[in-house]
Amino acid sequence: MILSVKTALSSYPIVLERGVLKKAKEHLLLNRKCMIVTDDNIPRKYVDTVSAQCADPYVFTVPAGEGSKSMETFGRILEEMLEKEFSRTDCVIALGGGVVGDLAGFVAASFQRGVDFYNIPTTVLSQVDSSIGGKVAINFKGWKNMVGAFYPPKAVLIDPDTLATLPERQIANGLAESVKMAATFDAELFELFEKGQALEKIDLVIEKSLRIKRRVVEEDERETGLRKVLNFGHTLAHAVESESHKSPDFLYHGECVAVGMVPMCSPAVRERLLPVLKMLKLPATVPFSGESLVEALSHDKKISGKDITLILVDRLGEYRMEKMPFSAFAERVKEDFQ
Amino acid sequence: MILSVKTALSSYPIVLERGVLKKAKEHLLLNRKCMIVTDDNIPRKYVDTVSAQCADPYVFTVPAGEGSKSMETFGRILEEMLEKEFSRTDCVIALGGGVVGDLAGFVAASFQRGVDFYNIPTTVLSQVDSSIGGKVAINFKGWKNMVGAFYPPKAVLIDPDTLATLPERQIANGLAESVKMAATFDAELFELFEKGQALEKIDLVIEKSLRIKRRVVEEDERETGLRKVLNFGHTLAHAVESESHKSPDFLYHGECVAVGMVPMCSPAVRERLLPVLKMLKLPATVPFSGESLVEALSHDKKISGKDITLILVDRLGEYRMEKMPFSAFAERVKEDFQ
Repeated sequence: MILSVKTALSSYPIVLERGVLKKAKEHLLLNRKCMIVTDDNIPRKYVDTVSAQCADPYVFTVPAGEGSKSMETFGRILEEMLEKEFSRTDCVIALGGGVVGDLAGFVAASFQRGVDFYNIPTTVLSQVDSSIGGKVAINFKGWKNMVGAFYPPKAVLIDPDTLATLPERQIANGLAESVKMAATFDAELFELFEKGQALEKIDLVIEKSLRIKRRVVEEDERETGLRKVLNFGHTLAHAVESESHKSPDFLYHGECVAVGMVPMCSPAVRERLLPVLKMLKLPATVPFSGESLVEALSHDKKISGKDITLILVDRLGEYRMEKMPFSAFAERVKEDFQ
Repeated sequence: MILSVKTALSSYPIVLERGVLKKAKEHLLLNRKCMIVTDDNIPRKYVDTVSAQCADPYVFTVPAGEGSKSMETFGRILEEMLEKEFSRTDCVIALGGGVVGDLAGFVAASFQRGVDFYNIPTTVLSQVDSSIGGKVAINFKGWKNMVGAFYPPKAVLIDPDTLATLPERQIANGLAESVKMAATFDAELFELFEKGQALEKIDLVIEKSLRIKRRVVEEDERETGLRKVLNFGHTLAHAVESESHKSPDFLYHGECVAVGMVPMCSPAVRERLLPVLKMLKLPATVPFSGESLVEALSHDKKISGKDITLILVDRLGEYRMEKMPFSAFAERVKEDFQ
């Protein structure tokens, strides 16, 4: 199946198809220098499959994890492209999860002011969420996604076969974002989760999630309005994430989103959300106090001291935005996490 | 006078007006945090004039010269913006020449994936040429403009009064680019140079140059075709520039362009170009041998071994493009610089 995503300047295809990794060159222009950016968690066979289809492939493997979204790694890939004499008409391919997509995307956006960028996400999280929308970035001085660009890919290839090698916890991590989109936009998709069919119908879950994400980013490419809805559960999730990272058995992003969604739902929605999270082995609460979460939120200068917009779900498949002072939100968090 | 420049996504105004520096806030949205990037050659009074009109101004002064277009300086400005808690709704202002414009523009393009960018060029070169077109970049590992973006400004303010403090040689340096545009597009503008009126009618020279540059960049924003014409004289100029930088009394960019234009003109055009260069105290030749220039060109992996497109002027105000193998071009250079 091919979904076309419109951007301000043009449009790009998302090809969702089992086995498409092996047919990459039918969809991507690979008869040139290709810089494949991947991480050391990605099975080598996927890299070889893509690489074998490129006329002049180079592979840059970064350590798995957020640490690779750094200015230093960004510079090292650019340097490698210079050494290999890449020109403006060559391309960059991301093969892996969100970290690799963000990093490779910003490299593609910046090298000689922009070369073609292809994204081949291989995790649930990046397949349902981060591979479309055109947001690319690296972290900087401890701040997430502080330096980057809006730079849409030329094409996205999604091969659900690549999920076969993914640990169960990573799958649930990605599905949390899909639950988020179901809760705010698509009651039918939510029911699929309730029936426990998300895994057996993963292709459908990806497709439905992509359709929601596409609708949102097409309407608000530069994140000035509607795109905020994708932050459902995320304001709190960021605080949970930073608290959780103090311990070695920290929570994954999707797990923090799961925790963050619960207090944003009406009691009726909560009653249906909690069993879904349980089925997916996603947490619904954390052992941190509301005070410690508020403390973590206060460190985020982007939100403390200002009005914040919460995304609330009163009925499944619908959302509303509510603006409140940070102090009111802080009170709410303290009540919810006693 | 206000010239509007269309881009793929929107358009931006160039305000060309004596004294507009003092009225910046009539044209720019300055009631927010403003990061003014400037260099230590720019008179402090210009910085103060702009700064006084900003609600919350910050000034980042870099050393004058190409060395400031570095990854390191790029990172330091981003860090400063983080420390001062800049958000996506704040802005970056370039106040100075092309180096400052390129650097500040890439900072604006990248900080939180893009904030508003205003350009206030204060040299002839940047006023007639580099302030429009949306190309921003830093140098990387000895390569010019290797990392950057196409990121149009939100507005450009050009105040010819700022040229009063510019050394004569810097003025000629900028006018060389204007001679380039006259030779390729505008015989009338060229006659103005021939009559020796360029300095007294500098406002008109800037306006006419901007109109030419606008026409070119509107037609070819991403530099895939027509924009190549702006390279008239530049292929050779880059070689002259790199040879010249081996000595402490090196040539300025515009001076190298002057040298580079001459061999690209027909004998008839040359006969009219040489007196113009002389009047502007721009060089028409250099003491380097053709061999050394070809040697310098061969180091440029972007052009050596490939076909190159020369911009040739047979009649003033018109140009033609000629594609030739690098080897043929090399022979030509050796003949021209014996």
